Amino acid sequence: MRVPSSSPLLTLSLSLSLSLLLTFACTAQQQEAPAPPRLLGTFAKLNREAPKPYEYEIRQFTQTLDHLSFSNLPSFQQRYLINARHWDPQSGPIFFYCGNEGDIEWFAANTGFVWDIAPRFRAMLLFAEHRYYGESMPYGSREKAYKDAASLAHLTAEQALADFAVLITELKKNFSADASPVVLFGGSYGGMLAAWMRLKYPHVAIGALASSAPILQFENIVPRETFYDIVSNDFRRESVECFNTIKRSWKAIETDGNKYDGLVYLTKKFHLCKTLKSTQDLSDWLSSAYSYLAMVDYPYPSEFLMPLPGYPIKEVCRKIDNAPDGSSDLDRVFAGVSIYYNYTGTVDCFDLQADPHGMSGWDWQACTEMVMPMSSGDNSMFWRFNFDYISTQERCLKDFGVNPRPYWITTEFGGHDLRFALGKFGSNIIFSNGLLDPWSGGSVLKNVSETIVALVTKEGAHHIDLRASTKEDPSWLLAQRASEIKLITEWIDQYHRVRKETNSSCASI
Amino acid sequence: MRVPSSSPLLTLSLSLSLSLLLTFACTAQQQEAPAPPRLLGTFAKLNREAPKPYEYEIRQFTQTLDHLSFSNLPSFQQRYLINARHWDPQSGPIFFYCGNEGDIEWFAANTGFVWDIAPRFRAMLLFAEHRYYGESMPYGSREKAYKDAASLAHLTAEQALADFAVLITELKKNFSADASPVVLFGGSYGGMLAAWMRLKYPHVAIGALASSAPILQFENIVPRETFYDIVSNDFRRESVECFNTIKRSWKAIETDGNKYDGLVYLTKKFHLCKTLKSTQDLSDWLSSAYSYLAMVDYPYPSEFLMPLPGYPIKEVCRKIDNAPDGSSDLDRVFAGVSIYYNYTGTVDCFDLQADPHGMSGWDWQACTEMVMPMSSGDNSMFWRFNFDYISTQERCLKDFGVNPRPYWITTEFGGHDLRFALGKFGSNIIFSNGLLDPWSGGSVLKNVSETIVALVTKEGAHHIDLRASTKEDPSWLLAQRASEIKLITEWIDQYHRVRKETNSSCASI
Repeated sequence: MRVPSSSPLLTLSLSLSLSLLLTFACTAQQQEAPAPPRLLGTFAKLNREAPKPYEYEIRQFTQTLDHLSFSNLPSFQQRYLINARHWDPQSGPIFFYCGNEGDIEWFAANTGFVWDIAPRFRAMLLFAEHRYYGESMPYGSREKAYKDAASLAHLTAEQALADFAVLITELKKNFSADASPVVLFGGSYGGMLAAWMRLKYPHVAIGALASSAPILQFENIVPRETFYDIVSNDFRRESVECFNTIKRSWKAIETDGNKYDGLVYLTKKFHLCKTLKSTQDLSDWLSSAYSYLAMVDYPYPSEFLMPLPGYPIKEVCRKIDNAPDGSSDLDRVFAGVSIYYNYTGTVDCFDLQADPHGMSGWDWQACTEMVMPMSSGDNSMFWRFNFDYISTQERCLKDFGVNPRPYWITTEFGGHDLRFALGKFGSNIIFSNGLLDPWSGGSVLKNVSETIVALVTKEGAHHIDLRASTKEDPSWLLAQRASEIKLITEWIDQYHRVRKETNSSCASI
Repeated sequence: MRVPSSSPLLTLSLSLSLSLLLTFACTAQQQEAPAPPRLLGTFAKLNREAPKPYEYEIRQFTQTLDHLSFSNLPSFQQRYLINARHWDPQSGPIFFYCGNEGDIEWFAANTGFVWDIAPRFRAMLLFAEHRYYGESMPYGSREKAYKDAASLAHLTAEQALADFAVLITELKKNFSADASPVVLFGGSYGGMLAAWMRLKYPHVAIGALASSAPILQFENIVPRETFYDIVSNDFRRESVECFNTIKRSWKAIETDGNKYDGLVYLTKKFHLCKTLKSTQDLSDWLSSAYSYLAMVDYPYPSEFLMPLPGYPIKEVCRKIDNAPDGSSDLDRVFAGVSIYYNYTGTVDCFDLQADPHGMSGWDWQACTEMVMPMSSGDNSMFWRFNFDYISTQERCLKDFGVNPRPYWITTEFGGHDLRFALGKFGSNIIFSNGLLDPWSGGSVLKNVSETIVALVTKEGAHHIDLRASTKEDPSWLLAQRASEIKLITEWIDQYHRVRKETNSSCASI
C-alpha cells in the first residue's frame, strides 16, 4: 500500500508524498501515499438541474494565454459572472472573487457571504473563472487544453493572477469605474490567489479577504504533519475511541486484504461497485473522507462537498463508537464513512473513482508549482508516512511528463519569515481561518502587521466565513464576519478619503 | 522624412512613434519618427582591451527559461559577477545590481558607486546579467536566441525579475547567507527592474535604489512631450541661439536634401562615410546625439557613452554659436555634434549605423512590453511629431512578427496614481533623478510615501549617482549620494533590528 501523499482541500486537492530533504525518505514505510484526491472532479461541478441560488449574467472575456512572455499562442475565452444590481457606479466598490480550481458557478453558489454583503456596500460582484477550469478553456476545449504538458504549460497561478489583473483593469475602463475600489475575495486556493494578488497587484485591488488560504503549506515552512494532525485532532476531540478505531483500521485493511480473496472480502464489506484492485485504493478512499470531513465540519447541515449533518465528525464518530456489539473495526469505519459518502441513504454501491478518465487541473498544478509536502506522524490517526519528493517527481513525470519546481512558490510569493518580509511592506489582507480546518495549519494564524491580519476561530472549518449566512450561524461566526465587514469598510473608507485628498491637492506623481 | 519617435536612454533605447489615442495620429507630419536608436549596439559593449576597473569573479548560473509557465524549454546559463572581498558573512548585506540591456561587465564598470561603498557596508557585490544580453543567451548563442519571435518570446522584464529572484534565493542558500539582507541597485531600465523587483519580491530584497528609472514613461501617465522637452531645455538653458539653430536645422536638411544631388551634398557636409539614403537618416543621427548629450550632461569629463568633456552641451552650443561668420545652420550643427561623435578628433568619417546587422534586444522589448509613447511639440527643438501607435505596431510586426501590448506594463507593475496605489503599500525604494536627464520626466520625482522617496538634483544627468566618485564631484552630487547611503544604512539597520526582535520573541508565523 501507499502512504497518503496528497490530501484534499476545499478545492485544494493535493499532491503529497515528497520529501524535499531526501535524507528524510523513509525506507520502512508500510503503505504508500494515496493518489492525490480529485476533489473537483468529484464535487466542484455545478448541478445544472438545481435552481441557481443567485442571479448573475455570464460573460466572456478574451484573454492572453501567455501574459508573461510573448509566445505566439491563441487567445482564449475566460468566463466571468457579473451582478451590478446593487452597484453604485459613482464610487461603489467591486467585489472580485478570485476563481479557483473549478466551475466558477459552483464557487458563486458557495460564496454567499459576498452576495449577502453586496447591498450594504452598494457593490458590484464579479466572479472570474480560473483558466483551465469550468468553461475557461485555452485551445477551445477541455480536451485540447488538457492534451499534454505543452497544452497545460500555461496553467499556473502567475498566469491566473495576470488574467485577473487584465480583466479587472479592462472592465473598470469599460464601466468607467475608475473611482471604484476593488476588494478581492477567495477561499482555499482562491484565497491564496486573493492574498498573492493583493501583494503583487496593489494598484489593481485595495485589499483581500483570503479565507482558509494555506500559503505557508510549502517546503518546510510549517511542520509537514500539520494537516493530518489537525484532521486527527478533529476526530480525537469527539472521541478517543473513534480516533483509535480509525488508527487501527489501516492495519486491519492490510491484514484482511492480504488474505486469500481478501480484496473480494473488502469489496463486499465496503459495498464497492467494483472489485478492489489494492488495499491502498480503499485506504485512500477512507482517508479522503476523513480529510474532507475535517474540512467541512460545519456547525450546521450543509451540502458543500456532500450532503452532511451539522458537525459531521461527531456523527461519524457516533456511528463508529455505537456500532452493534461484535462489530469489527472495519464494520465500524464503514458505518462511519457512510455518513460522508451516503448521508442521504441513496447509494447502493460506492465507486472509488467516480471520474477515472478525467485529468484534474489541480493534479497538474500539484505536479508543477503547488508542491505541498505532507507527512503523517506520531499524533496522526492515519498510517505513518513521510513526504517523499522523489516519488512525487516520478509520478509527475509519468502522469504529465513534467518536473515539479518545489521551491518556486516561495521564491515567487514568499512564505518564509512572513512577518519579517511583510511587517513593513504591504497592507489590507485578512487571513481568516477556522482551527478545525486541516488547511489552517498551513495558513497565516497570527497578525503579520497592523493591516495584514489573522482572524482565527476555534470552531471554524474550511472557509465557513465565505458561506451564506444561516439562521443557525453560531455567535463566533457572526463575530468573525462582522470583523471582516468592519475591516473591508475601513479599506474602502480609506480609499475614498485618500482619493479625495489626492485630488484636492492635485498631487499627481 | 520621419519624426523622432524613439529616443535614447542610457541603455534604454526606445521605440517611439506611437499614439495610444489613435485620434491623435497626425496626418500633416513633415517628418517621420526616427528609427529607434541602438544604444547598446553602439555603446554598451565592454572594451575588452581596456583594463577592468574592478575585480570580480565571473560565474554562471543555470536558469529556467520560462519561470512563469511550464513550457518545456532548455535551461540557459546566466552570467553574474561576484566580489566578496569586503563581505562580512555573518550579516553583511548583498548589493545586487539588476543588469539591464547590455553586457553586465559594462554595467559593473560604470556603476562605481556600489564598488565605492561596498567596504564600509562590508557588502558582497553581485552583478547579474539580464537574459538575452551579454553572454547570457538562451538556446546557447546570440544567433539562436535572436532567431525569431519564438526564440525571443521569453525576453521580458517579468522573466528577468524571476531570474534575479531565483539567483538571489539560490546564492543565499549556497553562501549560508540567510542573515544577509539584499539591497537592489539599478540605473535606467535596470533601475526600473530594481524598483519593480522590490515591489514584486519584497521577501527577496529589503530595498532598492532605482536611479533614473522612467517607470512612468508609459501610456499617458506623463506628458508625451516630456522627453524631448527636457532635451530641448538642456540646450536652451545653455543658449537660446543654439536651441534656435538646431530647431531651424531640420527644415534646412529637408530643403538641401531635396535639391538635385542634395543627399550627396549632405553626405559631404556631415563627413559621412556612405552616401545618405534619406534626410531622415541624418536627422535621426543628429537627434540621437542631442538626446544622448542630454543624458550624459555630466559636470566632469566622462566616457560613459562617448568620450566627452564636462557639461558637454555647453561645449556643443559653444561650437554652434561660435562657428565662423558665414557658417550656415548646418555647418553649425555639424560642428556641434562633432563634440559628441568625435571629441577625440580621431574620426575621419561617420558611420550612421555602426552595427546595421545586429538586432537589438531593446528593440524587441520596445516592440512588446516597453511601449513608451513620445511626442515632440511646441517647446521642442526637434521637429514636430506625435506618437503614433499604429506605425509602431506595423514596424514591430514587420521587424519581429510581434504585436506590442501597450497597456501591459501598467497592468503588471502599476504606474497610474502611484501615490494612491503605493501610499500605504510598499517601502524602501529610492527614486533618484537628475533633472537634466530627459528620462527624469518619466520617473518618480516626488515622495510616494515616507519610505518610497524621490531624491532629485537640479543639475544631475542620467544616473550620475551610480557612477564612481571623482575629485570633481560637485557638492549636490556628494549630498545626493550621502542621502542614499543614509537611507540604505537605515534599511539594513532596521532589518537587523527586526530580525533580532523576531528571533527573540520566537514569533514565527
